[in-house]
Amino acid sequence: MSLPTHVRLVEVGPRDGLQNEAQPISVADKVRLVDRLTDAGLDYIEVGSFVSPKWVPQMAGSAEVFAGIQRKPGVTYAALAPNLRGFEDAVAAGVKEVAVFAAASEAFSQRNINCSISESLERFTPIMDAARQHGVTVRGYVSCVLGCPYEGAVAAEQVAAVARELYAMGCYEVSLGDTIGTGTPGATRRMFEVVSASVPREKLAGHFHDTYGQAMANLYASLLEGIQVFDSSIAGLGGCPYAKGASGNVATEDVLYMLDGLGIGTGVDLDRLLLAGQEICAVLGRATGSRVARARQAG
Amino acid sequence: MSLPTHVRLVEVGPRDGLQNEAQPISVADKVRLVDRLTDAGLDYIEVGSFVSPKWVPQMAGSAEVFAGIQRKPGVTYAALAPNLRGFEDAVAAGVKEVAVFAAASEAFSQRNINCSISESLERFTPIMDAARQHGVTVRGYVSCVLGCPYEGAVAAEQVAAVARELYAMGCYEVSLGDTIGTGTPGATRRMFEVVSASVPREKLAGHFHDTYGQAMANLYASLLEGIQVFDSSIAGLGGCPYAKGASGNVATEDVLYMLDGLGIGTGVDLDRLLLAGQEICAVLGRATGSRVARARQAG
Repeated sequence: MSLPTHVRLVEVGPRDGLQNEAQPISVADKVRLVDRLTDAGLDYIEVGSFVSPKWVPQMAGSAEVFAGIQRKPGVTYAALAPNLRGFEDAVAAGVKEVAVFAAASEAFSQRNINCSISESLERFTPIMDAARQHGVTVRGYVSCVLGCPYEGAVAAEQVAAVARELYAMGCYEVSLGDTIGTGTPGATRRMFEVVSASVPREKLAGHFHDTYGQAMANLYASLLEGIQVFDSSIAGLGGCPYAKGASGNVATEDVLYMLDGLGIGTGVDLDRLLLAGQEICAVLGRATGSRVARARQAG
Repeated sequence: MSLPTHVRLVEVGPRDGLQNEAQPISVADKVRLVDRLTDAGLDYIEVGSFVSPKWVPQMAGSAEVFAGIQRKPGVTYAALAPNLRGFEDAVAAGVKEVAVFAAASEAFSQRNINCSISESLERFTPIMDAARQHGVTVRGYVSCVLGCPYEGAVAAEQVAAVARELYAMGCYEVSLGDTIGTGTPGATRRMFEVVSASVPREKLAGHFHDTYGQAMANLYASLLEGIQVFDSSIAGLGGCPYAKGASGNVATEDVLYMLDGLGIGTGVDLDRLLLAGQEICAVLGRATGSRVARARQAG
Protein backbone atom coordinates (compact mmCIF):
# COMPACT_ATOMS: atom_id res chain seq x y z
CA MET A 1 0.00 0.00 0.00
CA SER A 2 1.49 3.31 -1.01
CA LEU A 3 -0.73 6.33 -0.59
CA PRO A 4 -0.05 9.81 -1.98
CA THR A 5 1.53 12.22 0.49
CA HIS A 6 -0.52 15.16 -0.74
CA VAL A 7 -4.02 15.49 -2.17
CA ARG A 8 -5.65 18.47 -3.87
CA LEU A 9 -9.28 19.02 -2.95
CA VAL A 10 -11.45 20.59 -5.63
CA GLU A 11 -14.31 22.31 -3.83
CA VAL A 12 -17.43 22.11 -5.99
CA GLY A 13 -19.99 23.27 -3.39
CA PRO A 14 -20.63 26.80 -4.69
CA ARG A 15 -21.34 25.46 -8.20
CA ASP A 16 -22.19 21.75 -8.40
CA GLY A 17 -23.54 21.91 -4.86
CA LEU A 18 -25.73 25.02 -4.91
CA GLN A 19 -26.89 24.26 -8.45
CA ASN A 20 -28.58 21.14 -7.10
CA GLU A 21 -30.14 22.79 -4.07
CA ALA A 22 -33.82 23.66 -4.43
CA GLN A 23 -33.43 27.24 -3.39
CA PRO A 24 -31.32 29.94 -5.11
CA ILE A 25 -29.26 32.12 -2.75
CA SER A 26 -28.05 35.70 -3.03
CA VAL A 27 -24.81 36.87 -4.61
CA ALA A 28 -23.69 38.17 -1.21
CA ASP A 29 -24.19 34.75 0.39
CA LYS A 30 -22.28 33.06 -2.44
CA VAL A 31 -19.41 35.53 -2.11
CA ARG A 32 -19.26 34.93 1.61
CA LEU A 33 -19.20 31.15 1.07
CA VAL A 34 -16.33 31.34 -1.42
CA ASP A 35 -14.37 33.66 0.87
CA ARG A 36 -14.87 31.26 3.80
CA LEU A 37 -13.66 28.37 1.64
CA THR A 38 -10.59 30.41 0.69
CA ASP A 39 -9.98 31.10 4.38
CA ALA A 40 -10.14 27.36 5.08
CA GLY A 41 -7.13 26.83 2.82
CA LEU A 42 -8.72 25.28 -0.25
CA ASP A 43 -6.70 26.07 -3.36
CA TYR A 44 -9.36 25.20 -5.92
CA ILE A 45 -12.94 26.47 -5.72
CA GLU A 46 -15.57 26.05 -8.40
CA VAL A 47 -17.35 29.37 -7.97
CA GLY A 48 -20.18 29.38 -10.51
CA SER A 49 -21.49 28.55 -13.92
CA PHE A 50 -21.96 30.69 -17.03
CA VAL A 51 -25.15 29.24 -18.36
CA SER A 52 -28.56 30.68 -19.11
CA PRO A 53 -30.38 31.51 -15.84
CA LYS A 54 -33.50 30.22 -17.55
CA TRP A 55 -31.99 26.75 -17.34
CA VAL A 56 -30.18 26.99 -14.01
CA PRO A 57 -31.63 29.83 -11.93
CA GLN A 58 -29.38 28.91 -9.01
CA MET A 59 -26.35 30.02 -11.03
CA ALA A 60 -27.65 33.48 -11.91
CA GLY A 61 -25.22 36.22 -10.90
CA SER A 62 -22.01 34.22 -11.35
CA ALA A 63 -20.29 37.28 -12.86
CA GLU A 64 -21.24 39.32 -9.78
CA VAL A 65 -19.94 36.56 -7.54
CA PHE A 66 -16.59 36.58 -9.34
CA ALA A 67 -16.49 40.37 -8.99
CA GLY A 68 -17.22 40.16 -5.27
CA ILE A 69 -14.88 37.45 -4.00
CA GLN A 70 -11.50 38.04 -2.41
CA ARG A 71 -9.01 36.31 -4.69
CA LYS A 72 -6.13 34.81 -2.79
CA PRO A 73 -2.94 34.28 -4.83
CA GLY A 74 -2.36 30.65 -5.72
CA VAL A 75 -6.03 29.74 -5.47
CA THR A 76 -7.92 28.71 -8.62
CA TYR A 77 -11.44 30.15 -8.91
CA ALA A 78 -13.14 28.19 -11.68
CA ALA A 79 -16.44 28.31 -13.55
CA LEU A 80 -18.41 25.86 -15.63
CA ALA A 81 -18.71 27.02 -19.25
CA PRO A 82 -20.89 24.65 -21.26
CA ASN A 83 -20.63 26.58 -24.54
CA LEU A 84 -18.72 29.40 -26.26
CA ARG A 85 -21.21 32.04 -25.14
CA GLY A 86 -20.74 30.92 -21.55
CA PHE A 87 -16.98 30.87 -22.02
CA GLU A 88 -16.97 34.48 -23.30
CA ASP A 89 -19.11 35.60 -20.36
CA ALA A 90 -16.70 33.82 -18.02
CA VAL A 91 -13.66 35.52 -19.55
CA ALA A 92 -15.43 38.87 -19.33
CA ALA A 93 -15.95 38.17 -15.62
CA GLY A 94 -12.20 37.62 -15.19
CA VAL A 95 -12.33 33.84 -14.98
CA LYS A 96 -8.96 32.14 -15.56
CA GLU A 97 -10.10 28.51 -15.44
CA VAL A 98 -13.20 26.91 -16.86
CA ALA A 99 -14.64 23.41 -16.76
CA VAL A 100 -16.36 21.50 -19.56
CA PHE A 101 -18.60 18.51 -19.14
CA ALA A 102 -19.11 15.29 -21.14
CA ALA A 103 -20.78 11.98 -20.33
CA ALA A 104 -19.34 8.48 -20.56
CA SER A 105 -22.80 7.14 -21.38
CA GLU A 106 -24.40 7.75 -24.76
CA ALA A 107 -27.92 7.60 -23.35
CA PHE A 108 -27.11 10.08 -20.58
CA SER A 109 -25.51 12.47 -23.07
CA GLN A 110 -28.57 12.33 -25.31
CA ARG A 111 -31.07 12.82 -22.52
CA ASN A 112 -29.09 15.30 -20.48
CA ILE A 113 -27.51 17.58 -23.08
CA ASN A 114 -29.47 16.49 -26.13
CA CYS A 115 -26.56 15.39 -28.30
CA SER A 116 -24.23 12.43 -28.72
CA ILE A 117 -20.96 12.16 -26.81
CA SER A 118 -18.93 12.97 -29.93
CA GLU A 119 -21.14 15.96 -30.75
CA SER A 120 -20.66 17.26 -27.22
CA LEU A 121 -16.89 16.91 -27.58
CA GLU A 122 -16.97 18.73 -30.94
CA ARG A 123 -18.73 21.64 -29.29
CA PHE A 124 -15.77 22.03 -26.95
CA THR A 125 -13.33 22.66 -29.83
CA PRO A 126 -14.12 26.40 -30.14
CA ILE A 127 -13.98 26.71 -26.34
CA MET A 128 -10.53 25.06 -26.29
CA ASP A 129 -9.32 27.37 -29.07
CA ALA A 130 -10.66 30.46 -27.31
CA ALA A 131 -9.17 29.29 -24.02
CA ARG A 132 -5.71 28.96 -25.56
CA GLN A 133 -6.09 32.47 -26.99
CA HIS A 134 -7.06 33.94 -23.63
CA GLY A 135 -4.61 31.92 -21.56
CA VAL A 136 -7.49 30.22 -19.75
CA THR A 137 -6.97 26.68 -18.46
CA VAL A 138 -9.66 24.04 -18.96
CA ARG A 139 -10.63 21.12 -16.73
CA GLY A 140 -12.75 18.30 -18.10
CA TYR A 141 -15.50 16.38 -16.33
CA VAL A 142 -16.75 12.97 -17.37
CA SER A 143 -20.04 11.90 -15.80
CA CYS A 144 -21.56 8.43 -15.33
CA VAL A 145 -18.15 6.74 -15.13
CA LEU A 146 -19.40 3.91 -12.89
CA GLY A 147 -23.00 3.66 -13.99
CA CYS A 148 -25.75 5.41 -15.91
CA PRO A 149 -29.38 5.86 -14.86
CA TYR A 150 -30.50 4.80 -18.37
CA GLU A 151 -27.85 2.31 -19.54
CA GLY A 152 -26.85 0.73 -16.25
CA ALA A 153 -23.23 -0.47 -16.47
CA VAL A 154 -20.73 1.73 -18.31
CA ALA A 155 -17.57 0.13 -19.72
CA ALA A 156 -14.28 1.49 -18.37
CA GLU A 157 -13.02 1.51 -21.97
CA GLN A 158 -15.79 3.95 -22.87
CA VAL A 159 -14.77 6.19 -19.94
CA ALA A 160 -11.16 5.96 -21.13
CA ALA A 161 -12.14 6.97 -24.68
CA VAL A 162 -13.98 10.12 -23.51
CA ALA A 163 -11.25 11.03 -21.00
CA ARG A 164 -8.58 10.59 -23.70
CA GLU A 165 -10.44 12.92 -26.06
CA LEU A 166 -10.79 15.62 -23.41
CA TYR A 167 -7.12 15.30 -22.49
CA ALA A 168 -6.06 15.32 -26.15
CA MET A 169 -8.06 18.47 -26.88
CA GLY A 170 -6.26 20.29 -24.07
CA CYS A 171 -7.94 19.64 -20.72
CA TYR A 172 -5.03 19.62 -18.27
CA GLU A 173 -6.99 17.39 -15.87
CA VAL A 174 -9.99 15.09 -16.25
CA SER A 175 -12.36 14.49 -13.34
CA LEU A 176 -14.16 11.16 -13.44
CA GLY A 177 -17.58 11.34 -11.80
CA ASP A 178 -19.73 8.57 -10.35
CA THR A 179 -22.79 10.69 -11.00
CA ILE A 180 -25.38 8.26 -9.65
CA GLY A 181 -23.20 6.89 -6.87
CA THR A 182 -23.62 3.22 -7.73
CA GLY A 183 -19.89 2.46 -7.94
CA THR A 184 -18.13 0.20 -5.45
CA PRO A 185 -14.41 0.07 -4.65
CA GLY A 186 -13.41 -2.78 -6.97
CA ALA A 187 -15.11 -1.20 -9.97
CA THR A 188 -13.53 2.13 -9.04
CA ARG A 189 -10.05 0.64 -9.04
CA ARG A 190 -10.56 -1.19 -12.35
CA MET A 191 -11.92 1.99 -13.92
CA PHE A 192 -8.85 4.00 -12.89
CA GLU A 193 -6.55 1.21 -14.06
CA VAL A 194 -8.14 1.17 -17.50
CA VAL A 195 -8.39 4.96 -17.88
CA SER A 196 -4.82 5.54 -16.74
CA ALA A 197 -3.62 3.62 -19.79
CA SER A 198 -5.05 6.52 -21.84
CA VAL A 199 -4.53 9.53 -19.55
CA PRO A 200 -1.66 9.80 -17.04
CA ARG A 201 -2.81 8.96 -13.53
CA GLU A 202 -1.63 12.31 -12.16
CA LYS A 203 -3.98 14.05 -14.63
CA LEU A 204 -7.06 12.25 -13.29
CA ALA A 205 -9.38 13.23 -10.46
CA GLY A 206 -12.12 11.32 -8.65
CA HIS A 207 -15.61 12.73 -8.10
CA PHE A 208 -17.81 10.55 -5.90
CA HIS A 209 -21.40 10.72 -4.85
CA ASP A 210 -22.57 9.09 -1.64
CA THR A 211 -26.05 8.19 -2.89
CA TYR A 212 -25.48 4.50 -2.05
CA GLY A 213 -23.06 5.11 0.82
CA GLN A 214 -20.00 4.14 -1.23
CA ALA A 215 -18.25 7.50 -1.75
CA MET A 216 -15.73 7.24 1.06
CA ALA A 217 -14.79 3.64 0.29
CA ASN A 218 -14.43 4.54 -3.39
CA LEU A 219 -12.30 7.50 -2.48
CA TYR A 220 -9.99 5.35 -0.35
CA ALA A 221 -9.83 2.81 -3.19
CA SER A 222 -8.83 5.64 -5.55
CA LEU A 223 -6.04 6.74 -3.22
CA LEU A 224 -4.73 3.18 -3.37
CA GLU A 225 -4.69 3.59 -7.17
CA GLY A 226 -2.54 6.69 -6.82
CA ILE A 227 -5.24 9.28 -7.53
CA GLN A 228 -4.35 12.59 -5.88
CA VAL A 229 -7.16 14.99 -6.77
CA PHE A 230 -10.73 14.71 -5.50
CA ASP A 231 -13.84 16.80 -5.99
CA SER A 232 -16.07 17.29 -2.96
CA SER A 233 -18.76 19.63 -1.74
CA ILE A 234 -18.85 21.63 1.49
CA ALA A 235 -21.55 20.26 3.85
CA GLY A 236 -22.42 17.77 1.09
CA LEU A 237 -24.25 20.59 -0.75
CA GLY A 238 -26.23 19.27 -3.68
CA GLY A 239 -26.87 16.04 -1.90
CA CYS A 240 -29.28 16.82 0.88
CA PRO A 241 -29.49 13.71 3.06
CA TYR A 242 -33.14 14.46 3.77
CA ALA A 243 -34.36 14.91 0.21
CA LYS A 244 -35.57 12.29 -2.18
CA GLY A 245 -33.43 11.91 -5.30
CA ALA A 246 -30.48 13.56 -3.63
CA SER A 247 -27.49 13.88 -5.90
CA GLY A 248 -25.31 12.86 -3.00
CA ASN A 249 -22.12 14.89 -3.27
CA VAL A 250 -19.58 13.61 -0.79
CA ALA A 251 -18.95 16.21 1.95
CA THR A 252 -15.57 17.95 1.92
CA GLU A 253 -15.41 17.82 5.72
CA ASP A 254 -15.70 14.01 5.73
CA VAL A 255 -13.08 13.63 2.98
CA LEU A 256 -10.69 15.95 4.79
CA TYR A 257 -11.21 14.05 8.06
CA MET A 258 -10.14 10.84 6.32
CA LEU A 259 -7.14 12.44 4.61
CA ASP A 260 -6.05 14.02 7.91
CA GLY A 261 -6.34 10.59 9.54
CA LEU A 262 -4.26 9.02 6.79
CA GLY A 263 -1.60 11.68 7.25
CA ILE A 264 -2.14 13.01 3.74
CA GLY A 265 -1.54 16.77 3.42
CA THR A 266 -4.12 19.09 1.85
CA GLY A 267 -3.40 22.51 3.33
CA VAL A 268 -7.03 22.71 4.45
CA ASP A 269 -8.04 23.46 8.05
CA LEU A 270 -10.93 21.33 9.29
CA ASP A 271 -12.24 23.81 11.85
CA ARG A 272 -12.45 26.65 9.34
CA LEU A 273 -14.03 24.31 6.83
CA LEU A 274 -16.66 23.33 9.39
CA LEU A 275 -17.39 27.00 9.96
CA ALA A 276 -17.93 27.56 6.21
CA GLY A 277 -20.31 24.60 6.12
CA GLN A 278 -22.22 25.77 9.19
CA GLU A 279 -22.78 29.22 7.69
CA ILE A 280 -24.00 28.04 4.30
CA CYS A 281 -26.36 25.51 5.92
CA ALA A 282 -27.81 28.32 8.03
CA VAL A 283 -28.37 30.38 4.86
CA LEU A 284 -30.06 27.44 3.13
CA GLY A 285 -31.98 26.49 6.27
CA ARG A 286 -31.00 22.87 5.88
CA ALA A 287 -29.07 20.34 7.94
CA THR A 288 -25.51 19.57 6.97
CA GLY A 289 -24.78 16.52 4.83
CA SER A 290 -21.40 16.11 6.55
CA ARG A 291 -21.26 13.46 9.23
CA VAL A 292 -18.15 15.05 10.73
CA ALA A 293 -20.08 18.31 11.07
CA ARG A 294 -23.01 16.50 12.71
CA ALA A 295 -20.72 14.67 15.11
CA ARG A 296 -18.97 17.91 16.09
CA GLN A 297 -22.31 19.67 16.61
CA ALA A 298 -23.43 16.83 18.87
CA GLY A 299 -20.17 16.77 20.83
CA MET B 1 -5.10 -6.78 -3.50
CA SER B 2 -6.71 -10.03 -2.48
CA LEU B 3 -10.17 -9.79 -0.99
CA PRO B 4 -12.04 -12.56 0.80
CA THR B 5 -14.52 -14.47 -1.39
CA HIS B 6 -17.07 -14.75 1.40
CA VAL B 7 -18.03 -12.52 4.30
CA ARG B 8 -20.25 -13.26 7.27
CA LEU B 9 -22.51 -10.41 8.32
CA VAL B 10 -23.38 -10.25 12.01
CA GLU B 11 -26.68 -8.41 12.25
CA VAL B 12 -26.74 -6.38 15.46
CA GLY B 13 -29.84 -4.27 14.76
CA PRO B 14 -32.31 -6.01 17.09
CA ARG B 15 -29.89 -5.65 20.03
CA ASP B 16 -27.17 -3.01 19.61
CA GLY B 17 -29.44 -1.08 17.28
CA LEU B 18 -32.74 -1.02 19.16
CA GLN B 19 -30.95 -0.62 22.47
CA ASN B 20 -29.74 2.77 21.29
CA GLU B 21 -33.06 3.95 19.89
CA ALA B 22 -34.99 6.31 22.14
CA GLN B 23 -38.21 4.36 22.03
CA PRO B 24 -38.75 0.75 23.19
CA ILE B 25 -40.78 -1.44 20.83
CA SER B 26 -43.07 -4.41 21.47
CA VAL B 27 -42.03 -8.05 21.61
CA ALA B 28 -44.19 -8.75 18.57
CA ASP B 29 -42.39 -6.10 16.52
CA LYS B 30 -39.01 -7.45 17.61
CA VAL B 31 -40.02 -10.99 16.66
CA ARG B 32 -41.19 -9.80 13.28
CA LEU B 33 -37.90 -7.95 12.71
CA VAL B 34 -35.81 -11.01 13.55
CA ASP B 35 -37.95 -13.22 11.30
CA ARG B 36 -37.58 -10.75 8.43
CA LEU B 37 -33.81 -10.73 8.93
CA THR B 38 -33.81 -14.53 8.86
CA ASP B 39 -35.82 -14.40 5.63
CA ALA B 40 -33.22 -12.08 4.12
CA GLY B 41 -30.61 -14.80 4.51
CA LEU B 42 -28.56 -13.51 7.43
CA ASP B 43 -26.96 -16.36 9.33
CA TYR B 44 -26.14 -14.46 12.49
CA ILE B 45 -28.62 -12.24 14.31
CA GLU B 46 -28.06 -10.64 17.70
CA VAL B 47 -31.59 -10.88 19.04
CA GLY B 48 -31.52 -9.31 22.47
CA SER B 49 -29.79 -8.72 25.77
CA PHE B 50 -30.25 -10.33 29.16
CA VAL B 51 -29.70 -7.35 31.38
CA SER B 52 -31.81 -5.61 33.97
CA PRO B 53 -34.70 -3.73 32.27
CA LYS B 54 -34.10 -1.01 34.83
CA TRP B 55 -30.82 -0.28 33.03
CA VAL B 56 -31.84 -0.96 29.46
CA PRO B 57 -35.64 -0.77 29.10
CA GLN B 58 -35.39 -1.29 25.34
CA MET B 59 -34.17 -4.85 25.96
CA ALA B 60 -37.04 -5.93 28.21
CA GLY B 61 -38.77 -9.06 26.95
CA SER B 62 -35.73 -10.67 25.34
CA ALA B 63 -36.83 -14.11 26.63
CA GLU B 64 -40.23 -13.62 24.99
CA VAL B 65 -38.56 -12.57 21.77
CA PHE B 66 -36.45 -15.74 21.76
CA ALA B 67 -39.60 -17.77 22.41
CA GLY B 68 -41.43 -16.10 19.54
CA ILE B 69 -38.94 -16.14 16.67
CA GLN B 70 -38.86 -18.75 13.92
CA ARG B 71 -35.44 -20.39 14.22
CA LYS B 72 -34.01 -21.39 10.90
CA PRO B 73 -31.44 -24.21 11.04
CA GLY B 74 -27.89 -22.94 10.54
CA VAL B 75 -28.68 -19.45 11.79
CA THR B 76 -27.14 -18.22 15.04
CA TYR B 77 -29.51 -16.27 17.30
CA ALA B 78 -27.32 -14.60 19.91
CA ALA B 79 -27.83 -12.54 23.05
CA LEU B 80 -25.67 -10.20 25.06
CA ALA B 81 -25.02 -11.55 28.56
CA PRO B 82 -23.05 -9.06 30.63
CA ASN B 83 -22.98 -11.19 33.78
CA LEU B 84 -23.72 -14.69 35.12
CA ARG B 85 -27.30 -13.80 36.03
CA GLY B 86 -27.87 -12.64 32.47
CA PHE B 87 -26.18 -15.75 31.12
CA GLU B 88 -28.47 -18.02 33.16
CA ASP B 89 -31.55 -16.15 31.97
CA ALA B 90 -30.28 -16.48 28.41
CA VAL B 91 -29.77 -20.23 28.74
CA ALA B 92 -33.23 -20.56 30.26
CA ALA B 93 -34.57 -18.80 27.16
CA GLY B 94 -32.89 -21.37 24.94
CA VAL B 95 -29.99 -19.18 23.81
CA LYS B 96 -27.07 -21.12 22.30
CA GLU B 97 -24.67 -18.21 21.77
CA VAL B 98 -23.92 -15.25 23.97
CA ALA B 99 -21.72 -12.20 23.65
CA VAL B 100 -19.57 -10.53 26.28
CA PHE B 101 -18.24 -7.02 26.19
CA ALA B 102 -14.93 -5.42 27.25
CA ALA B 103 -13.30 -2.07 26.46
CA ALA B 104 -9.84 -1.39 25.06
CA SER B 105 -9.74 1.86 26.98
CA GLU B 106 -9.28 1.91 30.75
CA ALA B 107 -11.16 5.20 31.16
CA PHE B 108 -14.11 3.95 29.08
CA SER B 109 -14.25 0.72 31.09
CA GLN B 110 -14.29 2.64 34.37
CA ARG B 111 -16.95 5.11 33.29
CA ASN B 112 -19.10 2.72 31.30
CA ILE B 113 -19.10 -0.46 33.35
CA ASN B 114 -17.60 0.88 36.55
CA CYS B 115 -14.59 -1.43 36.76
CA SER B 116 -11.13 -1.81 35.25
CA ILE B 117 -10.54 -3.77 32.06
CA SER B 118 -8.96 -6.64 33.97
CA GLU B 119 -11.82 -6.73 36.49
CA SER B 120 -14.30 -6.86 33.61
CA LEU B 121 -12.40 -9.77 32.08
CA GLU B 122 -12.35 -11.60 35.43
CA ARG B 123 -16.12 -11.30 35.63
CA PHE B 124 -16.36 -13.27 32.39
CA THR B 125 -14.62 -16.33 33.86
CA PRO B 126 -17.76 -17.79 35.47
CA ILE B 127 -19.70 -17.08 32.27
CA MET B 128 -17.09 -18.92 30.20
CA ASP B 129 -17.20 -21.88 32.63
CA ALA B 130 -20.98 -22.00 32.56
CA ALA B 131 -20.99 -21.65 28.77
CA ARG B 132 -18.70 -24.68 28.40
CA GLN B 133 -20.99 -26.65 30.71
CA HIS B 134 -24.09 -25.76 28.71
CA GLY B 135 -22.48 -26.06 25.28
CA VAL B 136 -23.05 -22.36 24.66
CA THR B 137 -20.62 -20.52 22.38
CA VAL B 138 -19.31 -17.09 23.36
CA ARG B 139 -18.37 -14.16 21.13
CA GLY B 140 -16.30 -11.30 22.53
CA TYR B 141 -16.63 -7.59 21.80
CA VAL B 142 -13.92 -5.04 22.36
CA SER B 143 -15.03 -1.40 22.26
CA CYS B 144 -13.06 1.80 21.64
CA VAL B 145 -10.48 0.05 19.45
CA LEU B 146 -9.74 3.16 17.39
CA GLY B 147 -10.43 5.87 19.91
CA CYS B 148 -11.99 6.62 23.27
CA PRO B 149 -14.23 9.55 24.19
CA TYR B 150 -12.21 10.07 27.39
CA GLU B 151 -8.66 8.99 26.50
CA GLY B 152 -8.52 9.92 22.81
CA ALA B 153 -6.07 7.64 21.03
CA VAL B 154 -6.02 3.95 22.01
CA ALA B 155 -2.87 1.92 21.32
CA ALA B 156 -3.31 -1.08 19.01
CA GLU B 157 -1.20 -3.07 21.47
CA GLN B 158 -3.80 -2.41 24.16
CA VAL B 159 -6.54 -3.65 21.82
CA ALA B 160 -4.42 -6.73 21.09
CA ALA B 161 -3.98 -7.43 24.81
CA VAL B 162 -7.72 -7.36 25.51
CA ALA B 163 -8.56 -9.36 22.37
CA ARG B 164 -5.94 -11.96 23.28
CA GLU B 165 -7.43 -12.37 26.77
CA LEU B 166 -10.95 -12.84 25.40
CA TYR B 167 -9.70 -15.35 22.84
CA ALA B 168 -7.63 -17.20 25.44
CA MET B 169 -10.58 -17.50 27.81
CA GLY B 170 -12.64 -19.15 25.10
CA CYS B 171 -14.33 -16.57 22.89
CA TYR B 172 -14.31 -18.23 19.45
CA GLU B 173 -14.38 -14.82 17.74
CA VAL B 174 -13.53 -11.28 18.84
CA SER B 175 -15.30 -8.29 17.31
CA LEU B 176 -13.29 -5.07 17.36
CA GLY B 177 -15.49 -2.00 17.61
CA ASP B 178 -14.77 1.59 16.63
CA THR B 179 -17.34 2.73 19.16
CA ILE B 180 -17.03 6.47 18.58
CA GLY B 181 -16.36 6.20 14.84
CA THR B 182 -13.19 8.28 14.79
CA GLY B 183 -11.05 5.64 13.06
CA THR B 184 -9.73 6.14 9.52
CA PRO B 185 -8.57 3.44 7.08
CA GLY B 186 -4.83 3.56 7.82
CA ALA B 187 -5.37 3.27 11.57
CA THR B 188 -7.85 0.45 10.95
CA ARG B 189 -5.31 -1.52 8.92
CA ARG B 190 -2.52 -1.00 11.47
CA MET B 191 -4.88 -2.05 14.28
CA PHE B 192 -5.77 -5.32 12.53
CA GLU B 193 -2.11 -5.94 11.71
CA VAL B 194 -1.10 -5.58 15.34
CA VAL B 195 -4.05 -7.52 16.79
CA SER B 196 -3.66 -10.39 14.31
CA ALA B 197 -0.26 -11.12 15.83
CA SER B 198 -2.18 -12.09 19.00
CA VAL B 199 -5.44 -13.53 17.64
CA PRO B 200 -5.71 -15.30 14.25
CA ARG B 201 -7.10 -12.97 11.59
CA GLU B 202 -9.96 -15.37 10.78
CA LYS B 203 -11.11 -15.09 14.41
CA LEU B 204 -11.48 -11.30 14.23
CA ALA B 205 -14.47 -9.23 13.18
CA GLY B 206 -14.83 -5.52 12.41
CA HIS B 207 -17.55 -3.34 13.94
CA PHE B 208 -17.66 0.17 12.50
CA HIS B 209 -19.67 3.24 13.32
CA ASP B 210 -20.28 5.89 10.70
CA THR B 211 -20.33 8.83 13.12
CA TYR B 212 -17.56 10.59 11.17
CA GLY B 213 -18.44 9.11 7.78
CA GLN B 214 -15.55 6.63 7.87
CA ALA B 215 -17.30 3.28 8.37
CA MET B 216 -17.44 2.15 4.76
CA ALA B 217 -13.84 3.14 4.03
CA ASN B 218 -12.72 1.39 7.22
CA LEU B 219 -14.69 -1.68 6.26
CA TYR B 220 -13.07 -1.79 2.82
CA ALA B 221 -9.66 -1.31 4.46
CA SER B 222 -10.44 -4.27 6.76
CA LEU B 223 -11.32 -6.47 3.78
CA LEU B 224 -7.91 -5.63 2.36
CA GLU B 225 -6.46 -6.89 5.66
CA GLY B 226 -8.27 -10.20 5.21
CA ILE B 227 -11.05 -9.62 7.73
CA GLN B 228 -14.13 -11.68 6.81
CA VAL B 229 -16.71 -10.96 9.49
CA PHE B 230 -18.44 -7.61 10.00
CA ASP B 231 -21.10 -6.38 12.41
CA SER B 232 -23.75 -4.07 10.99
CA SER B 233 -27.23 -2.86 11.84
CA ILE B 234 -30.33 -3.00 9.67
CA ALA B 235 -31.37 0.52 8.55
CA GLY B 236 -28.46 1.83 10.63
CA LEU B 237 -30.55 1.28 13.78
CA GLY B 238 -28.92 2.81 16.80
CA GLY B 239 -27.41 5.54 14.72
CA CYS B 240 -30.22 7.80 13.68
CA PRO B 241 -28.83 10.23 11.12
CA TYR B 242 -31.18 12.93 12.40
CA ALA B 243 -30.34 12.73 16.08
CA LYS B 244 -27.58 14.46 17.94
CA GLY B 245 -25.04 12.14 19.48
CA ALA B 246 -25.99 9.33 17.15
CA SER B 247 -24.05 6.17 17.83
CA GLY B 248 -23.76 5.73 14.09
CA ASN B 249 -24.01 1.98 13.42
CA VAL B 250 -23.15 1.29 9.81
CA ALA B 251 -26.25 0.12 7.89
CA THR B 252 -26.33 -3.53 6.82
CA GLU B 253 -27.92 -2.57 3.48
CA ASP B 254 -24.99 -0.28 2.61
CA VAL B 255 -22.41 -2.89 3.63
CA LEU B 256 -24.18 -5.58 1.61
CA TYR B 257 -24.36 -3.27 -1.41
CA MET B 258 -20.58 -2.84 -1.30
CA LEU B 259 -19.92 -6.56 -0.81
CA ASP B 260 -22.27 -7.43 -3.69
CA GLY B 261 -20.42 -4.90 -5.86
CA LEU B 262 -17.09 -6.44 -4.88
CA GLY B 263 -18.39 -9.89 -5.82
CA ILE B 264 -18.06 -11.10 -2.23
CA GLY B 265 -20.65 -13.68 -1.24
CA THR B 266 -22.79 -13.30 1.90
CA GLY B 267 -25.93 -15.33 1.23
CA VAL B 268 -28.02 -12.24 2.01
CA ASP B 269 -30.64 -10.87 -0.38
CA LEU B 270 -30.64 -7.07 -0.67
CA ASP B 271 -34.31 -6.69 -1.58
CA ARG B 272 -35.48 -8.72 1.40
CA LEU B 273 -33.08 -6.86 3.63
CA LEU B 274 -34.50 -3.55 2.42
CA LEU B 275 -37.97 -4.80 3.26
CA ALA B 276 -36.89 -5.66 6.81
CA GLY B 277 -35.41 -2.18 7.19
CA GLN B 278 -38.48 -0.47 5.80
CA GLU B 279 -40.77 -2.28 8.25
CA ILE B 280 -38.74 -1.57 11.36
CA CYS B 281 -38.38 2.11 10.41
CA ALA B 282 -42.16 2.32 10.04
CA VAL B 283 -42.55 0.82 13.52
CA LEU B 284 -40.06 3.28 14.98
CA GLY B 285 -41.48 6.17 12.97
CA ARG B 286 -38.03 7.23 11.86
CA ALA B 287 -36.22 7.59 8.57
CA THR B 288 -33.78 4.90 7.56
CA GLY B 289 -30.08 5.37 8.23
CA SER B 290 -29.23 3.35 5.11
CA ARG B 291 -28.31 5.39 2.06
CA VAL B 292 -29.05 2.44 -0.23
CA ALA B 293 -32.57 2.32 1.24
CA ARG B 294 -33.01 6.07 0.73
CA ALA B 295 -31.76 5.87 -2.86
CA ARG B 296 -34.13 3.00 -3.61
CA GLN B 297 -37.07 4.86 -2.05
CA ALA B 298 -36.27 7.90 -4.20
CA GLY B 299 -35.86 5.89 -7.40
